[in-house]
Amino acid sequence: MSEAATKLLSETLGKTVLIKLRGDKNIRGKLRSFDIHLNIVLDDAEEIRDDGTSKKLGTVVIRGENVVLISPSG
Amino acid sequence: MSEAATKLLSETLGKTVLIKLRGDKNIRGKLRSFDIHLNIVLDDAEEIRDDGTSKKLGTVVIRGENVVLISPSG
Amino acid sequence: MSEAATKLLSETLGKTVLIKLRGDKNIRGKLRSFDIHLNIVLDDAEEIRDDGTSKKLGTVVIRGENVVLISPSG
Amino acid sequence: MSEAATKLLSETLGKTVLIKLRGDKNIRGKLRSFDIHLNIVLDDAEEIRDDGTSKKLGTVVIRGENVVLISPSG
Amino acid sequence: MSEAATKLLSETLGKTVLIKLRGDKNIRGKLRSFDIHLNIVLDDAEEIRDDGTSKKLGTVVIRGENVVLISPSG
Amino acid sequence: MSEAATKLLSETLGKTVLIKLRGDKNIRGKLRSFDIHLNIVLDDAEEIRDDGTSKKLGTVVIRGENVVLISPSG
Amino acid sequence: MSEAATKLLSETLGKTVLIKLRGDKNIRGKLRSFDIHLNIVLDDAEEIRDDGTSKKLGTVVIRGENVVLISPSG
Repeated sequence: MSEAATKLLSETLGKTVLIKLRGDKNIRGKLRSFDIHLNIVLDDAEEIRDDGTSKKLGTVVIRGENVVLISPSG
Repeated sequence: MSEAATKLLSETLGKTVLIKLRGDKNIRGKLRSFDIHLNIVLDDAEEIRDDGTSKKLGTVVIRGENVVLISPSG
Repeated sequence: MSEAATKLLSETLGKTVLIKLRGDKNIRGKLRSFDIHLNIVLDDAEEIRDDGTSKKLGTVVIRGENVVLISPSG
Repeated sequence: MSEAATKLLSETLGKTVLIKLRGDKNIRGKLRSFDIHLNIVLDDAEEIRDDGTSKKLGTVVIRGENVVLISPSG
Repeated sequence: MSEAATKLLSETLGKTVLIKLRGDKNIRGKLRSFDIHLNIVLDDAEEIRDDGTSKKLGTVVIRGENVVLISPSG
Repeated sequence: MSEAATKLLSETLGKTVLIKLRGDKNIRGKLRSFDIHLNIVLDDAEEIRDDGTSKKLGTVVIRGENVVLISPSG
Repeated sequence: MSEAATKLLSETLGKTVLIKLRGDKNIRGKLRSFDIHLNIVLDDAEEIRDDGTSKKLGTVVIRGENVVLISPSG
């Protein structure tokens, strides 16, 4: 990651992020940790479905390789 | 993995996890072991289908490359 | 693989396993050998189709990269 | 990246770019940073849908591996 | 490959194999050569289609990365 | 790339090329630069759609990993 | 590639080959050059469509990673 990306995610720790995964999956949750491969731990995560409904997942570990983008604005 | 991810999964050993795999497969089982590539061994695993039914798989070895996310909340 | 995965597969040599491959293919056969990349040789293998029918394949070499999970319970 | 690509993107910092991602996703935003893997940070990003509507995403971190092309002309 | 896989394929040189490729392609032909990446040369190859018909391809070089499994039983 | 590929692309600098990308995308533009990974910068690029219409993209940076083929004949 | 694959392709230089690419694309042309990654330059190439029609592409550079198989029999 560029220094700007690392700084941005560091400032977002503890706050809500929206993560788009491959295969059109959207997960929202509180960013607990991340590494340079974008492996991520979220708290209070939920999967956001296309129809606007969501499913609670609790704490999740996300494999970086599946991450398309992270939106710290949640 | 970040230290937080490793710690989280270590604390989950022996407990039930939900694993989302590529291709929209969901597997639930007791976490027996994992490594840094997210290769995983689950006991009493079952595949959860979209219609809510499940199929028992027993003990399974999951190749890390297929893991999208792990939810220790099961 | 974790030590647990290697041990599990070693104990399964000569026994029947179910292997799920990418692209929703299921292969069942007797585990003759495996390596750390999950390249696998099965004897008496058969492809299990969605409609429950199967097709005999005999001995097969499976490329590890396509393996999603291995269920030693068969 | 070639020197020409790096120079082009450097000159585009702070300006609007259109990014095409795998899976036919289009994101437009102001280029805040990029690295040699094409990991990217955009400000004021929005997802452009096929029907011409868009969804605001705010600041986003995009994983380079998903980038197909970047159009500095926005 | 495991030693067992290499031995199996070595014993199959000159004999007919069925190769399943990604994207549900099936190729049958005489195994002329293979390497550890499962790059393969087949003689008298033909593509086997789902409807049971086949198309002659003659000698072919197959890129290992596309190989899902090799069945020496043909 | 082979020496022949590098030579061919070098001779094509400043001329129009057709690039086929994964996911059946076709881009045409003037080749400004390329590197050994086939990362490419095109000027006056346009996306060519299946129905024969096109969309102007201006200058674009294309990630080599998505390139299927380059046709210097345009 | 195995020595047999390299030898086969070397003997095919200047002759017509059929190349199957990922995503069910078929390209036919005269083999001008290849490297160990199967990056390829074809002259007088044409794309062969499923309905039997073809589209002239002239000289093309093909990225090896997309090659599924090469049939020197054309």
